[in-house]
Amino acid sequence: MKISSDPGIRALLERARNLGIETVWDRCQTQLPQCGFGELGVCCHNCSQGPCRIDPFGNGPRSGVCGAGRDTLASSTFVRAVTAGTAALSVYAKGMVRLVSAPGREIKNMEKLEAVAGRLGLNPVPGPVGLLQQLADTARAEFSFRDEPPAWILTTLTKGRIDSLGKAGALPQGIDSSIAESVQRSAMGATSDPLDLLLSGVKCAVAGFAASRLASDLADIVFGAPQPAVTSLAPNSESQVNIAVQGFDRALTQSLEIAAGELADEAKVLGATGFNVMALGWGQSILQELSLLTGLWDAVAVTGQCSYPSLSDTAGWTGTKIFAAGLAGMPGVFQLDQEENGAGETGRKIVREALGAFKVRQEKAAPAPGEARMALMGFSYSSILSALAELNPADPLQFLLESIVKGRIQGIALIGGCPNVKMPLAESFLVLARELARRDILLLTAGCGAGSFARHGMLTSGATHEYAGPGLKSFLTAVGEASGAGGPWPLLLHLGGCPDICRAIDLAVDLANKLGVDLSRLPFVFSLPEYSNERALTFALSALALGLPVHLGITPPVMGSNLMVNILTGGVKDLFGGYFILESDPYQAVNKLSDAISQRRKGLSLGVR
Amino acid sequence: MKISSDPGIRALLERARNLGIETVWDRCQTQLPQCGFGELGVCCHNCSQGPCRIDPFGNGPRSGVCGAGRDTLASSTFVRAVTAGTAALSVYAKGMVRLVSAPGREIKNMEKLEAVAGRLGLNPVPGPVGLLQQLADTARAEFSFRDEPPAWILTTLTKGRIDSLGKAGALPQGIDSSIAESVQRSAMGATSDPLDLLLSGVKCAVAGFAASRLASDLADIVFGAPQPAVTSLAPNSESQVNIAVQGFDRALTQSLEIAAGELADEAKVLGATGFNVMALGWGQSILQELSLLTGLWDAVAVTGQCSYPSLSDTAGWTGTKIFAAGLAGMPGVFQLDQEENGAGETGRKIVREALGAFKVRQEKAAPAPGEARMALMGFSYSSILSALAELNPADPLQFLLESIVKGRIQGIALIGGCPNVKMPLAESFLVLARELARRDILLLTAGCGAGSFARHGMLTSGATHEYAGPGLKSFLTAVGEASGAGGPWPLLLHLGGCPDICRAIDLAVDLANKLGVDLSRLPFVFSLPEYSNERALTFALSALALGLPVHLGITPPVMGSNLMVNILTGGVKDLFGGYFILESDPYQAVNKLSDAISQRRKGLSLGVR
Repeated sequence: MKISSDPGIRALLERARNLGIETVWDRCQTQLPQCGFGELGVCCHNCSQGPCRIDPFGNGPRSGVCGAGRDTLASSTFVRAVTAGTAALSVYAKGMVRLVSAPGREIKNMEKLEAVAGRLGLNPVPGPVGLLQQLADTARAEFSFRDEPPAWILTTLTKGRIDSLGKAGALPQGIDSSIAESVQRSAMGATSDPLDLLLSGVKCAVAGFAASRLASDLADIVFGAPQPAVTSLAPNSESQVNIAVQGFDRALTQSLEIAAGELADEAKVLGATGFNVMALGWGQSILQELSLLTGLWDAVAVTGQCSYPSLSDTAGWTGTKIFAAGLAGMPGVFQLDQEENGAGETGRKIVREALGAFKVRQEKAAPAPGEARMALMGFSYSSILSALAELNPADPLQFLLESIVKGRIQGIALIGGCPNVKMPLAESFLVLARELARRDILLLTAGCGAGSFARHGMLTSGATHEYAGPGLKSFLTAVGEASGAGGPWPLLLHLGGCPDICRAIDLAVDLANKLGVDLSRLPFVFSLPEYSNERALTFALSALALGLPVHLGITPPVMGSNLMVNILTGGVKDLFGGYFILESDPYQAVNKLSDAISQRRKGLSLGVR
Repeated sequence: MKISSDPGIRALLERARNLGIETVWDRCQTQLPQCGFGELGVCCHNCSQGPCRIDPFGNGPRSGVCGAGRDTLASSTFVRAVTAGTAALSVYAKGMVRLVSAPGREIKNMEKLEAVAGRLGLNPVPGPVGLLQQLADTARAEFSFRDEPPAWILTTLTKGRIDSLGKAGALPQGIDSSIAESVQRSAMGATSDPLDLLLSGVKCAVAGFAASRLASDLADIVFGAPQPAVTSLAPNSESQVNIAVQGFDRALTQSLEIAAGELADEAKVLGATGFNVMALGWGQSILQELSLLTGLWDAVAVTGQCSYPSLSDTAGWTGTKIFAAGLAGMPGVFQLDQEENGAGETGRKIVREALGAFKVRQEKAAPAPGEARMALMGFSYSSILSALAELNPADPLQFLLESIVKGRIQGIALIGGCPNVKMPLAESFLVLARELARRDILLLTAGCGAGSFARHGMLTSGATHEYAGPGLKSFLTAVGEASGAGGPWPLLLHLGGCPDICRAIDLAVDLANKLGVDLSRLPFVFSLPEYSNERALTFALSALALGLPVHLGITPPVMGSNLMVNILTGGVKDLFGGYFILESDPYQAVNKLSDAISQRRKGLSLGVR
């Protein structure tokens, strides 16, 4: 099994092998061959008369016990996965609403608060605290049983898009209602029409988009918009007390930073040069075990999103203290009460345990960490806009729009989502980025897959020099120099963790509005070359519903149904303009994505190479 | 495969075979052997690095790709099923809230409205319409993102129970929030602690109970409490225009009755003796195809709960017009817009199509219908109370309580839920009822399984004469005669469809309060001898959480984890008092259930046989 050509990764894998520590690649081997029925979406265990499966070749059973055929099964499997993704985003977003509602919450970005409140049409109330509370209440109501679509849909998309969603019956009402509805409709004997069922999944995916969009607004207000920052797979220094937060819990990260400040003296006493608190929701995923195996993390807090249950075993070797915060729950680790999460006491508890682990780590011979490339990470749409504003303060988007119209940039592609152990590490991400950049396509990235770009130096200006086509290079150079980066911007602009994928849609909506067209006509594409988490499917399906071509390199569980494949790759175009490109070969995917961009350019009468 | 000894059923099965029409039993045969991994709950496809499975014998893979072991997998499979059941109840209950909120909605049961409003502590407002609206708003808020537990939990259970649920962390807040939360927590890398995960499932099941409890209150107010009524598998008469509603959509049934009244003359012109509109949410389930095969149904409306996708094929032979209403959605049938559902136009449309089908049916030689036993069905807790009030108007429950205390009745058992094609039709239901009745246990039933009792004449006073133990017989005779039934009450009191299972809890709560103990000490048990739908698991787990021993004759998907089995059958007792009895042999189940009752009687210092 070819895993990676990255020497740092290979060294860590070798360490795991020598120590007899299991990694995700070992476990994947033991699972082979994986169940073909499940992979194709023709296995169903939605009632206890099952589990049922349908013979994809048509020789065995043609329907489950209830009479549901392959199309219904594939649709319901797909819809349940999408729904689970929306549920994850709902839980994440509601956590943010609770946090914003907490008394005394500091506002870091007043400008954003005013902008969001204005966009939502909130009545001005005296004082910023009142406004924040009003915003929190509006956000809270998005998750209610209500008859109106979420305000975070109605005020964040193009008018044409809201019309299309409405016509297709894909405008959600309450976010959590849409979750309950699509779980129910995929139950045995509920909605057996595969298209009808799929539409409830689309509605639910759009609700997931609303949740992530809402969460990103609130996070920006109370934590400030994410700024470009340096991060890496391994901690930067052996001599620091290294603490990581896995997931998107910025409140926990903040409280750890505060606690680290309070306990700085204790670190000094132990001979540490200081604390290093890092959020690892960005770019970890399948590498989380290897990251631990650097042996340099003293404490890791997992927060209920994509943390492998294996971590507690790995930590047994490294001596890392693992904490389960919020809704996580992991056996054999320190469990923090839900109420404690985000509070000062939680931060202090973790930091104190990290100090203890650091002490032990200093006493034994620490292994040399694997090579850990650094990367410039963490753009946000607003930081991109600020940079563009340096070129044209009155109309920041103008330079980008002009670059697209004149063909300097052919289009925009987000390459994001999760990596997947089934594919050679990083390869498809790298092929897509290099080849699309060569074709002058502006690249965004978000989600754990961006870790591949970080480790391979693709989030640097060096990569722009090496891989960008002439038009793209001139664009990135102009923006980079104007924004004081002293050189071109990196080859890919990193927007954050997977919930930040919605920030790419912001850019798309602004461009569409400026061009006076709907999203479905924009030369803007998504690629999730390797996704693994259910959330990724939610992003994929919502992007489709918002009108974009979406490439998936791992096929979702629908291949057992020709009908579902035809609908998702073609039929849905009539409803939404967006569609799936199912293609596991990254070179073919590049061709299909750039064809999609060219086609849309032609539709706008723009020049095509 | 032994299906049934019932001659009516056998005749219909033979008809299906002769005509080459597939039934649920044929399809079950084609699925054998079913996937053992799925049955044991050790198959996971909650991310696209899977599907993964764990070798139950410990020789193959011990964990999925992410590192989740058998306990996590079994817990997450179980929790997702329970959550889907809660989602179904939430959707059903929200439909009822919308219906109650509709302008001009008639109030059929003013007494109930006042009682419910009083229980919830609503402020009196002028006029019944205002009160209904206030109630609807309170109901609507139950599904919101909120910090308080549902009012339909806080005001319907014993105080002790609310304390236990709170201490265990199993008090839900918003109903739909709890669905999103437990879907999310069962995702890859979220909550890997199996017990922690299970608790989120328990919380979600309790939320499902709240939803069904709320729906039953609202339904009683606008439709009146269900009264004993006669129903059957086949329509009573060939000469009527026969229309069935599958599911719990009482609004649709009502609008069909109105439309039938309006179009009565048209039926007469065709030579029909009238219309027969029947709600088949009660007692159909796996017999829905056979019911169609009587050839006497002219129209069937499916409403999105447990309607086999195969129905449209079967209807192709019978000429029955099938309509998909509400959230149903079934290919090849008449699809009704969601907005139309419940409106007069929907009713008229269905009735008109039924008239057309009746005409065709009259023209061709109609087959002799299978034997169709009648039954007295559709009690409600309030009708039970009314009957008891005849014996003691000041304190209706006194006679029942006294009967339990003195040992005339040893305890109470609800035998309900769905039938399952994997078990010989009706057998376990019948064994449980006969044997528990013989031991003087008062029997309630609800859900499609009650159809087994109906067809086998168990919902009759004859069955009481035949099977009831002396104590139970004297009780049922006293009540039956006092209530004017002219003989003993039937052997089982039928409460309605599966959402009406919550009505049994009402009785339990009142008895517990009267005895001054919590539900967990009451000689009150549940048995779901054959469940199939996910909702049934929700009822089972919520009854466990409410403190009752719950027998399941089909094992839920947890058997691949000893830990989960031990927790569910034993460990949970410490938290809730309730627990599962997993037993596929109905005779063994009888012993275990009556042991549980005896144990609880001893705990209350009551005499035991």
